[in-house]
Amino acid sequence: MNPHLETLPSDFLYHIGYNKEDAKKLFGDVKFVVMGGSSKRMESFAVKIAKAINHPQTEPKDLDMTKTDRFCFYKIGPVISVNHGMGVPSITILLHEIFKLLHYAEAVDPVIIRMGTCGGLGLPAGTLVISDKTVNGYVEEKHETIILGKIVQRPAVMSKPLADEILKAQTDATFITTLGTTMCTDDFYEGQGRIDGACCDYTKEEQIAYLKELHQKGVSNIEMEATALASLCNKAGFKCAIVCVTLLNRLEGDQVDIPPDVYASYQERPQNLVCDYIRGKLAGNY
Amino acid sequence: MNPHLETLPSDFLYHIGYNKEDAKKLFGDVKFVVMGGSSKRMESFAVKIAKAINHPQTEPKDLDMTKTDRFCFYKIGPVISVNHGMGVPSITILLHEIFKLLHYAEAVDPVIIRMGTCGGLGLPAGTLVISDKTVNGYVEEKHETIILGKIVQRPAVMSKPLADEILKAQTDATFITTLGTTMCTDDFYEGQGRIDGACCDYTKEEQIAYLKELHQKGVSNIEMEATALASLCNKAGFKCAIVCVTLLNRLEGDQVDIPPDVYASYQERPQNLVCDYIRGKLAGNY
Repeated sequence: MNPHLETLPSDFLYHIGYNKEDAKKLFGDVKFVVMGGSSKRMESFAVKIAKAINHPQTEPKDLDMTKTDRFCFYKIGPVISVNHGMGVPSITILLHEIFKLLHYAEAVDPVIIRMGTCGGLGLPAGTLVISDKTVNGYVEEKHETIILGKIVQRPAVMSKPLADEILKAQTDATFITTLGTTMCTDDFYEGQGRIDGACCDYTKEEQIAYLKELHQKGVSNIEMEATALASLCNKAGFKCAIVCVTLLNRLEGDQVDIPPDVYASYQERPQNLVCDYIRGKLAGNY
Repeated sequence: MNPHLETLPSDFLYHIGYNKEDAKKLFGDVKFVVMGGSSKRMESFAVKIAKAINHPQTEPKDLDMTKTDRFCFYKIGPVISVNHGMGVPSITILLHEIFKLLHYAEAVDPVIIRMGTCGGLGLPAGTLVISDKTVNGYVEEKHETIILGKIVQRPAVMSKPLADEILKAQTDATFITTLGTTMCTDDFYEGQGRIDGACCDYTKEEQIAYLKELHQKGVSNIEMEATALASLCNKAGFKCAIVCVTLLNRLEGDQVDIPPDVYASYQERPQNLVCDYIRGKLAGNY
């Protein structure tokens, strides 16, 4: 952890609204921080995990500890459920503040889990991908960022044992669950080779050639946070996992226009697996 | 606008929840799209602009047309008020969908305005900066993004006449309002040279030298969306402006820990100016 933190007279975690003293009082028992892009999804996960671990409260209002409109924030016993918004900058803001919160709280070996939605490559819609590898827009296993005006590259390596453990927790065989290589992009439209953005300077043929190339290089799914999560967790010394459900097969299309009931059932899949994993872990099964 | 759009049988704008047909019915009269990071700020702006332009409705619930939990969405006569979350990827998702919405709606010359909070350089807290220039993490007037696996650089140029027009609308002389060069970063902590992140590999002296160098190069404020907004608006053919209030002078510190009443008064400043500008523009004053 950053050695400068010890020299700060106080530390207000501006985007989540907690400070160093809150951390010590409230978060010492945290074992799992579960995050996802959407605030509604993280509210429904809070209710689901509360029921799964027999927490005395299962109403969102009783679990809700949100302090700002930047990120929602729920605590369910040893589990924090929080949304990270969309994209690398948004999740890095959250991660810096969550890491400091856990550090000040002296939480013991907490694990960071991201649940998400994504585009799949060569996989049917509704597939669960547990990332055992993350790659950037150049299909390299690293994350690039600019620090003091200079490019810094960091390894974006996932914890393979944790990915394996989560895979073992899966009991639902009605859809595919697989380990896979997750690509992280900084844009949903041009950055993921879609032709339905407001701007698009390439042809349909160039798009398909690009997506096929990614598929051949082993990319199984595309989202917008993976390498930042992997590299920052590495750097700060936390284990992390990513469980994403594919909403479509990008080799077949661009539009995410799924009937609401199907969409809802897809969104349940990462939540159910992460619930089963956490319940099993707390019971000492892994 | 992207020529492929004409070939799509339908177009669902997934993150804002509207489609092509909604656009035609509901948004043809839009003249201003005002955006900011925080959803609460955009709700309060919706109420403020409704009062400023004598809209018959001034209750948030009557103005609220939000369809998803990704972005809030208000419509007040010819004004859309929407939040863009934090960081470049989040705002680019919104911009692609807003541009398509305006295109399908056949809105006439709509203007995009971002209101934000930022760190200032050599300016007192509470200063309003209207961006007449935006630069990236290398202090270059461009935006870099990866498309089909290759780096693409685009000019991130602001509309100087629009910035001048907004500056002229300012009547409150109790604080500084200035044109300035706005730097856009992909991270709030290491990316902006803070020493209070969870990770930090540089010294306090290196931080100060970096911030002074930025100041000497003419950077007046630092936020997380400017070059993406400028470059995408250029590319898609929309005029845009950015009005940010500085929350602190970064030459003096890192922590954003302002008393709530002072913070609230700072947040009012870009809102008041943008309201005055829109009201004046609709009255034909500029």
